[in-house]
Amino acid sequence: MTRTAGIIGLGLIGGSFARVCKNAGLRVIGADICPDTRRAAFAAGIADEVSAEPAAVCKADEILIATPVGTFGDIFSAVAGTLSPSAVLFDGGSCKRRAAELAAKHLGAKAGRFVPSHPVAGGEDSGFAASSADLFRGCWTVLCPARSDEDAAAAAKAAWKRAGAQIAVMTTREHDAIFAAVSHLPHLLSFALMESLRADSGGEGALRYAAGGFRDFTRIAGSHPTMWRDICLQNGDELLSASARFRRQLESFEQAIVKKDGAALKNKFAAARALRRKWREDLEK
Amino acid sequence: MTRTAGIIGLGLIGGSFARVCKNAGLRVIGADICPDTRRAAFAAGIADEVSAEPAAVCKADEILIATPVGTFGDIFSAVAGTLSPSAVLFDGGSCKRRAAELAAKHLGAKAGRFVPSHPVAGGEDSGFAASSADLFRGCWTVLCPARSDEDAAAAAKAAWKRAGAQIAVMTTREHDAIFAAVSHLPHLLSFALMESLRADSGGEGALRYAAGGFRDFTRIAGSHPTMWRDICLQNGDELLSASARFRRQLESFEQAIVKKDGAALKNKFAAARALRRKWREDLEK
Repeated sequence: MTRTAGIIGLGLIGGSFARVCKNAGLRVIGADICPDTRRAAFAAGIADEVSAEPAAVCKADEILIATPVGTFGDIFSAVAGTLSPSAVLFDGGSCKRRAAELAAKHLGAKAGRFVPSHPVAGGEDSGFAASSADLFRGCWTVLCPARSDEDAAAAAKAAWKRAGAQIAVMTTREHDAIFAAVSHLPHLLSFALMESLRADSGGEGALRYAAGGFRDFTRIAGSHPTMWRDICLQNGDELLSASARFRRQLESFEQAIVKKDGAALKNKFAAARALRRKWREDLEK
Repeated sequence: MTRTAGIIGLGLIGGSFARVCKNAGLRVIGADICPDTRRAAFAAGIADEVSAEPAAVCKADEILIATPVGTFGDIFSAVAGTLSPSAVLFDGGSCKRRAAELAAKHLGAKAGRFVPSHPVAGGEDSGFAASSADLFRGCWTVLCPARSDEDAAAAAKAAWKRAGAQIAVMTTREHDAIFAAVSHLPHLLSFALMESLRADSGGEGALRYAAGGFRDFTRIAGSHPTMWRDICLQNGDELLSASARFRRQLESFEQAIVKKDGAALKNKFAAARALRRKWREDLEK
């Protein structure tokens, strides 16, 4: 019998995962609250069956939850009753401690079927229209299977490998600390820079002269407000720690400016540049 | 007689300006402290004459200073004696109050020949090898000619228009406040994020999982340490004001996270996103 994938949320992540599944010959059942998205996925032949209801995907062998993390409680609750004991459930969210807690709370005896997962992929564009079967290729997908059934963890791993992802395994706590530092904090800073320009009387006028550096720095301030509200709330403690560390650095830069300490500034800038270069070089290896 | 351009500093800005001048049929005299750069510019036929000495360009009709802003005092001092009273002198630096002050101090009676100017162009790569005759095309060049001779201001404007730039005229104070907000502060924040990762025990390991958003946010942390030290020192007061405004915003984001105030977070993120979108749309008009 043809293996079936169920996908809840047919946006950039869910739509891209659906395309991978179709390319691999799976049957795809898609759930999305937006009628236009459902129609688009069905018309494109990417979903064989669509529904507004998350529970409609429960007959699938593998199920991806690809909605904003703030919806996970409701979704676990909606699928808990009808989820097959042999199905594997995994997600595409950016916060893993809270996802695991919500699964334990709502799935009860079936909580071992859930494998917290985070495909580290995305881009400026979002939604089904931006989805691509190549989105995950060569990207990390982090799995946190400490409380998952062994076969469920293996199935989730196989599903992400099929999408071309590199797999990393860690605890939910490790995940949340790492992504607070390298993803959630930069988003917060980028949003905060735009807000500080908006709050400043001359800020919006100044934007006229903003150039390429500003464009790249603020690209992530174009990210989705609901998604980032949910991430800030679910990973608040780690994000606040990362932000406090950042503010200490910024304050030490400011002190060097106040003291006109050119040597300290140059050393810090050189160290920052060297670390970034090392990062880029390591990536290219 | 063929018009002559003198260019002090044959890096990305100076090299690109030299290419524009050659394309327009000017004779180009280049000065650079780096022998390799001098050789490269001469070998490429972009400079007709090269020298290690800034004063070597003084016979030119128009002179661009395209070295880090921290060198301007020495350069004004080196050219003051031999600068022709009919020559026009302009610069490519990112701080305009200090440039005007240094010109007044070192050029004495010839200070009116100097036109503070800032081509808002640049990129990830620097140096003569990255220079291009198209670098300035469609970019802003800000001129601050309040204390310049009228004919000098007109000549500087014509030179930047020849390079394809759009001209904006403002005071040195307006310039420094605007660029603190849209350029100098984002650089400081990007450097500070890299430094906060370096200072954190898990930071460098976390970098392994950094993705596209992080790459774009930190691109400007790859900028040149000496250049940015000089900018931070010369525009310190405006930069500190912009940084203080930014920190107030960041702290209000943090407070919303502490209070789990999802509505405030979503509103702020939506406003930040809307302002960024408006900026991008205005640019494309």
